[in-house]
Amino acid sequence: MRNLDEQTITQAVLARNAGTEDRRLHEIMTSLVQHLHAFARETQLTEQEWEKGIEFLTAVGQICTPTRQEFILLSDTLGLSTLVTAQNHKKPAGCTEATVFGPFHVADAPQFDLGANISSGLPGTPWFVKGKVQSADGAPIPHAKIEVWQADDAGFYDVQKPGLEAHHGRAILQANAEGHYQFRTIVPDCYPIPHDGPVGKMLETLNRHPWRPAHLHFMITAPGFQRLVTHVFREGGDYLDSDAVFGVRSSLIAEWVSHESGLDPYGNQIDSQYYTLEFDFILHHA
Amino acid sequence: MRNLDEQTITQAVLARNAGTEDRRLHEIMTSLVQHLHAFARETQLTEQEWEKGIEFLTAVGQICTPTRQEFILLSDTLGLSTLVTAQNHKKPAGCTEATVFGPFHVADAPQFDLGANISSGLPGTPWFVKGKVQSADGAPIPHAKIEVWQADDAGFYDVQKPGLEAHHGRAILQANAEGHYQFRTIVPDCYPIPHDGPVGKMLETLNRHPWRPAHLHFMITAPGFQRLVTHVFREGGDYLDSDAVFGVRSSLIAEWVSHESGLDPYGNQIDSQYYTLEFDFILHHA
Repeated sequence: MRNLDEQTITQAVLARNAGTEDRRLHEIMTSLVQHLHAFARETQLTEQEWEKGIEFLTAVGQICTPTRQEFILLSDTLGLSTLVTAQNHKKPAGCTEATVFGPFHVADAPQFDLGANISSGLPGTPWFVKGKVQSADGAPIPHAKIEVWQADDAGFYDVQKPGLEAHHGRAILQANAEGHYQFRTIVPDCYPIPHDGPVGKMLETLNRHPWRPAHLHFMITAPGFQRLVTHVFREGGDYLDSDAVFGVRSSLIAEWVSHESGLDPYGNQIDSQYYTLEFDFILHHA
Repeated sequence: MRNLDEQTITQAVLARNAGTEDRRLHEIMTSLVQHLHAFARETQLTEQEWEKGIEFLTAVGQICTPTRQEFILLSDTLGLSTLVTAQNHKKPAGCTEATVFGPFHVADAPQFDLGANISSGLPGTPWFVKGKVQSADGAPIPHAKIEVWQADDAGFYDVQKPGLEAHHGRAILQANAEGHYQFRTIVPDCYPIPHDGPVGKMLETLNRHPWRPAHLHFMITAPGFQRLVTHVFREGGDYLDSDAVFGVRSSLIAEWVSHESGLDPYGNQIDSQYYTLEFDFILHHA
């Protein structure tokens, strides 16, 4: 434990960690230390570069608030989130695919009845969304909890708007006994992930754009089934092939159908263009 | 760039980063992404574990202040700091070895004349420190800038004391034309690294103690020589074989010589026990 050099330090740290009682934690820390050290050796990291790394991570942590999670953005933009999502959701074909959780979910979204307008007054093009929640064998899953969250038509989530107390464009709904759900909202636009912080600066120096294709977030939970965290993307939209967080799956791209003014799906006259989306979710047994 | 899975995501991220103009940054990011992904695959990291990781890193960043650097503590306790120090300071035998920088250096320490008492009133056992700064061929290095920082006799640095505005136990000195330096201070004790935050909690779950052996920090700079960041450890002290940050080098352990009351090295009567240390620094040409 004295005179450790760049070769012997790794085994010394592992030896020091050997008393960890939680065996899973021990396994994780062993792999973490080995890869962290291998990274520093492989790159022959200099002290100045190490210092820059410390400063970067500190800035990432310091900009976090209850409504801004810059470490999730970092994980998303480095592809770690997609990797973790993928390796934890190897599902049978036919089940709805999962994708990244993202940093904009909040736990205390307002509850709405089926059919409600969840946009809470956001201006934008009306959008009527409906579908079914079912299991792989086609049986409806009754009363699934459906959480929905989305950007507005300028690409911002409610939590990104300074001083805004209320929730906009997010809801908790419950599918009916036959597994059906429906709600009204507005069409969200593509948006850049928050790029006024250290992760945005990182993307800039990597010559990468911060944009995500337009999408609607869903998290669906039902007893006896695996929780599904996913998006529905807009067919034909921009950035489907260069999502800043690597989240696009072909099976999650759907047509957001444009309609001229007329009777909306609820039978009410609507005097502007509006969109509809129908998307069914197939959950995997727990 | 669609339908990425846990195998294809790594190449997709590297492809996205391919436009990085700074080739060194590109090299570092490539290694970082590969090792980060390999870690997640090797451990089959779960979403819950990923979440815990995000929470941990966020807490590390949030506890940082201008005088508390928890990411350096994390790097130190994971052995990364010692690795980076070692691979950047492969010096010829005979040159003073470097060790970890630690989180307690401040840039604006007060300047003192040679021989001054730098403890700024800290209570404790008097300690008289002196030595030479020289090059490997034995020639004195005149007027080197010597920064010194240390814990008090309870193991705390000034920046750890809430509300304390002044600097205690830190100084900037200049060696004389013959390379000699000397100052008076108090004997620092062993101390635990700050362990009331996330890194302390990590050490606890790893069943590791947070203690460092007693030491005095030096940073020495002189034109034409490599900057030396190092410690002098106390021979026979506790924790020399289990330093929480892996920083001990045998060549940096020296006798802190105990003396009964009498005439101190400056020829003044001293009515208590005191200590002396003599330590020469040999800098490596830049």
